Amino acid sequence: MSDLRVAVLGVGMMGGFHVETLSRRVHGATVSVINDYDQAKAVAVAGSIGARTESDPLAAINADDVDAVVIASPGTAHEQQVLACLDRGIPVLCEKPLTVDPVSALEVVKAERRTGKQLVQLGFMRRFDPEYAAAKQLIDSGELGRVLLLHCVHRNMANGPHFDSAMMITDSVVHEVDVARFLLGEEIASVQVLKPTATSAAPEGVSDPMIVIFRTGSGVIVTVEIFVRAQIGYEVRTEVVGERGSTLFGLDQHGITKLSGPDGSGRWGGLVPPGFIERFAPAYQIELQHWVDAARTGGIDGPGAWDGYAAAAVCAAGVEAVRTGEVVPVTLGSIE
Amino acid sequence: MSDLRVAVLGVGMMGGFHVETLSRRVHGATVSVINDYDQAKAVAVAGSIGARTESDPLAAINADDVDAVVIASPGTAHEQQVLACLDRGIPVLCEKPLTVDPVSALEVVKAERRTGKQLVQLGFMRRFDPEYAAAKQLIDSGELGRVLLLHCVHRNMANGPHFDSAMMITDSVVHEVDVARFLLGEEIASVQVLKPTATSAAPEGVSDPMIVIFRTGSGVIVTVEIFVRAQIGYEVRTEVVGERGSTLFGLDQHGITKLSGPDGSGRWGGLVPPGFIERFAPAYQIELQHWVDAARTGGIDGPGAWDGYAAAAVCAAGVEAVRTGEVVPVTLGSIE
Amino acid sequence: MSDLRVAVLGVGMMGGFHVETLSRRVHGATVSVINDYDQAKAVAVAGSIGARTESDPLAAINADDVDAVVIASPGTAHEQQVLACLDRGIPVLCEKPLTVDPVSALEVVKAERRTGKQLVQLGFMRRFDPEYAAAKQLIDSGELGRVLLLHCVHRNMANGPHFDSAMMITDSVVHEVDVARFLLGEEIASVQVLKPTATSAAPEGVSDPMIVIFRTGSGVIVTVEIFVRAQIGYEVRTEVVGERGSTLFGLDQHGITKLSGPDGSGRWGGLVPPGFIERFAPAYQIELQHWVDAARTGGIDGPGAWDGYAAAAVCAAGVEAVRTGEVVPVTLGSIE
Amino acid sequence: MSDLRVAVLGVGMMGGFHVETLSRRVHGATVSVINDYDQAKAVAVAGSIGARTESDPLAAINADDVDAVVIASPGTAHEQQVLACLDRGIPVLCEKPLTVDPVSALEVVKAERRTGKQLVQLGFMRRFDPEYAAAKQLIDSGELGRVLLLHCVHRNMANGPHFDSAMMITDSVVHEVDVARFLLGEEIASVQVLKPTATSAAPEGVSDPMIVIFRTGSGVIVTVEIFVRAQIGYEVRTEVVGERGSTLFGLDQHGITKLSGPDGSGRWGGLVPPGFIERFAPAYQIELQHWVDAARTGGIDGPGAWDGYAAAAVCAAGVEAVRTGEVVPVTLGSIE
Repeated sequence: MSDLRVAVLGVGMMGGFHVETLSRRVHGATVSVINDYDQAKAVAVAGSIGARTESDPLAAINADDVDAVVIASPGTAHEQQVLACLDRGIPVLCEKPLTVDPVSALEVVKAERRTGKQLVQLGFMRRFDPEYAAAKQLIDSGELGRVLLLHCVHRNMANGPHFDSAMMITDSVVHEVDVARFLLGEEIASVQVLKPTATSAAPEGVSDPMIVIFRTGSGVIVTVEIFVRAQIGYEVRTEVVGERGSTLFGLDQHGITKLSGPDGSGRWGGLVPPGFIERFAPAYQIELQHWVDAARTGGIDGPGAWDGYAAAAVCAAGVEAVRTGEVVPVTLGSIE
Repeated sequence: MSDLRVAVLGVGMMGGFHVETLSRRVHGATVSVINDYDQAKAVAVAGSIGARTESDPLAAINADDVDAVVIASPGTAHEQQVLACLDRGIPVLCEKPLTVDPVSALEVVKAERRTGKQLVQLGFMRRFDPEYAAAKQLIDSGELGRVLLLHCVHRNMANGPHFDSAMMITDSVVHEVDVARFLLGEEIASVQVLKPTATSAAPEGVSDPMIVIFRTGSGVIVTVEIFVRAQIGYEVRTEVVGERGSTLFGLDQHGITKLSGPDGSGRWGGLVPPGFIERFAPAYQIELQHWVDAARTGGIDGPGAWDGYAAAAVCAAGVEAVRTGEVVPVTLGSIE
Repeated sequence: MSDLRVAVLGVGMMGGFHVETLSRRVHGATVSVINDYDQAKAVAVAGSIGARTESDPLAAINADDVDAVVIASPGTAHEQQVLACLDRGIPVLCEKPLTVDPVSALEVVKAERRTGKQLVQLGFMRRFDPEYAAAKQLIDSGELGRVLLLHCVHRNMANGPHFDSAMMITDSVVHEVDVARFLLGEEIASVQVLKPTATSAAPEGVSDPMIVIFRTGSGVIVTVEIFVRAQIGYEVRTEVVGERGSTLFGLDQHGITKLSGPDGSGRWGGLVPPGFIERFAPAYQIELQHWVDAARTGGIDGPGAWDGYAAAAVCAAGVEAVRTGEVVPVTLGSIE
Repeated sequence: MSDLRVAVLGVGMMGGFHVETLSRRVHGATVSVINDYDQAKAVAVAGSIGARTESDPLAAINADDVDAVVIASPGTAHEQQVLACLDRGIPVLCEKPLTVDPVSALEVVKAERRTGKQLVQLGFMRRFDPEYAAAKQLIDSGELGRVLLLHCVHRNMANGPHFDSAMMITDSVVHEVDVARFLLGEEIASVQVLKPTATSAAPEGVSDPMIVIFRTGSGVIVTVEIFVRAQIGYEVRTEVVGERGSTLFGLDQHGITKLSGPDGSGRWGGLVPPGFIERFAPAYQIELQHWVDAARTGGIDGPGAWDGYAAAAVCAAGVEAVRTGEVVPVTLGSIE
């Protein structure tokens, strides 16, 4: 079977990493077209892998040498680009968010529905991380009993002043939204946000860290610590608590090095990964391989448009919860 | 210096363990008098260590051969017994609760204040656990920066049907109340309780597990998972999150054994301690040694009557929060 | 660039896994030809990926639709097959052993030398394992100081009665030979083998477990526990001890699950991987990607023929050490 | 029962710590007499606990206010002091070594035998460490199957230039000698010592680190890494490998702290204890409590004179093995 020819829209950190992975570590894919609003960057990236550039994203989507599309452009551009892929009937891997709000996200779900096929895959890469996949399998095995609680910790080293409380929900907690929906197999029914005193590293008016609490339809409670200026590194940790057992993963324990610290005291331990690419590189690779394999036969293999819509709906409620301090219900629309 | 002669009131599991520790592993103490409402049990315990019994707890407190008192009787008896110790002016180690409600607890604080001495020590043994003590030291060193969040997990293997949602607060979460006050060095200002779907192991009407949330005066948020029928063992875990670092302790990682499981698959790991005595035996021993050392010179060395009162006030708010689902403020009285 | 067309010789467990990896998870490779002495198996594997079969391995090596070769056939066939690849001047990835003895291995090194190119890569996959690679980087950073000791543990769940003491050296310890040479960057100068009482699971006359001791030219000592019937799972652990620090990796600590054991006691821990494919699947994938990338430009990227020869020489000394109980020196030949 | 009145001979670091423990953390003991060749130090220590001094150790042993003796004087003084205790017929806790050589140690064993009682306990405190005790229990439960191998690591932060290769055996490895005999329940039959290149922190002529190998009568092999200038802290780690399972303990994993390192990279881990007192303080306390409890009824409760003799014999063979590089057999004398 010939390689899947992929257009990549947006080659910032995420898109650039996807180009690298698709071009060097995934079987059966060729990145044929690069698009970026910064044409110089597009030219540089395309040159490094022998692709061509296209200055108009819609032209890239509709090009003859493109079989499928990866969208890593700014979130405001996603809706139009995904709809163009649906119009042409080709598979697309869209980084979160699906669109900028639940209403438009639901429209995309409906548009996909009208094609009669599943063409839109969302870039929730954690589903492909071996630890998350093992936890899902353990839950589904029934060994833990019915799940009652989920505890999540999500910490970043640092973020710029633009990264406000709402972005902490829509750009960061969105991953826990998908993790909770994936692991629990059900929808989130409400969101609440608690704000402790903020770190002095946060800009005026930004609540960092926050405790975000989801409640699912069946009554599972999910606690999420989101702390995007924790000054250490990238930490993503999850604990699943069931009636008969629990599992905790994402601790950084991969080997123990012993060295003297700056004060001469002996220290055991290791390095915390600085960022999400270091932590989740294997997950991204597995995600892209699954997507390419599925796209070569015209489908997807991972979270879909509905997952993107549900995440958008929960995040919208979360932003409201940040604003009001109330428990905000999540109501999902119908695609009928 | 001659040994401190101790009367132990109540020799159930906790009191019996204290008798054993005082009589065999603590320097400078002799248990001279045993009291229990079950006289046969008192006689048996007294016989094993060469002590005498006293059928009336107040007589025990006032006996000539008693220099100090350990109260491990039912909580309803504590108020009268502590006041009798204060009347006589001798040191007392009182298991939680100090009394059954905040009003009476505050009266005990005032009664102690009138003696002009600190005579009442509360049995919050975790303050003496080496891991908690190290965390306190780490916080106080400033290395973590200002503390913003505390995450606690408190799980028991099993509990009888009488152990209802209110007792989960007053008998279990009371330890996290003291841990939070101890580690953070400030009072808790409000309590909120979230109830996920209960485990099927819980009796009708009991919310097990629960998520309890404290907010301190300065704005630190404390999350507590309390789950008293978790079916595995005794797990007490704490994470302190500061502006510049975090520390997590209470993981069960003391040695790794590899064996085949019942299904023939290889398994690494170890045993979870079944109960609090296995987990905290060294802490109890250190607690009693500190108390005996202080009591021999007429004082205390550990959490005092105010700590008992504050815990009672927070727990009363917690019980209210269980009932109402609201954020319940904690207002502490004045001892002036 | 067009895909590298690969012939895979031998599709047992290892070769079959390589076919799967090359065909589904590696960029830029197509398995075009399958050879196995069991033609039915060759046909089955070839059919699953759209390749053709070739009943003669030398014909496969010389076929027009073959650019490079993976050798996973029995060790006795390697010499002739590698030499045929050298004759044709195409890259080859050869599973260990390079050949069955040091003399013939040295001949292969010389034959490769005469081609003027590096064409032979050995399948020592651990060099591509992220933990080994990180340890190598840590050593090379100088942070541990000069390395003085290396401790290795290598345990398998089970092995058949044919797997005798000599095979424990040539098939299992051979990996530690390469690990030691890789991490230390120098040759092994002598081998000694110590035999404790054997496990009752070992056949009569087989010394399982054994302690194998290497000494390098500069005086580093390497201890290896090899235990191929340990009944638990696959455990490969390494500790590097330097003048100023140490690093230990390969502990199984990737997440902590808590469940009740068969006796009702609570247990924390996780699963030990059953075999080397579960443990090293990512390493194999990285190894093959590196090899494919290099082979597409006619070279190799990993351990070479000399590494295969050196391992053969150390293993031959090891087999002698098993027999005699003496310290057996390793003398490496010259390729001039 | 009245307190055991203890004379402590030698109040250097070890003896001083014992005085502290006996006087403040052990039930039923009073340190009545202090002796040290440095009388000023004896006076200072005695003053701090209300004891008196005795400038002659034999006078201390025979004093009316002494019921039992702790010997923490230099090893050369032990023989005479232990024999004096035996002459008087009182219990003694003797720090290792029992005496300076196997011949004299055997004489002590015989002298004790003539008293008809067990009066001599050796200060091998690891037997009282909860981790070692749990490992012993696990071995004895049969869950691991027959033990085949023991791997020990013993590292110190630093040592002075006087601490030569022989002392590394007699002062450090002596603990592993006792650990091996304790865990395995049998005698060590031979010793071999391997010397890698020494750390540059070692004085000329001192082999630091070394690999020491014991073989027991039944064929178990014990590997010991002894490294007394490892520059990090105090690390004592043990792995027991049986036919059906293994257990590894002594890893430093008691809580995970995350902080930024000096280079700004995030680091997880904790502190390595600097010395043996920090690591084994609870074991010393348990050891002394056991000894005091037994001594109050005239006996011992722990390793005895024979264990001291056997350790001396193995260490003498070890020193010979350091010198010769050969496998040196250990032959134990008879006490008949």
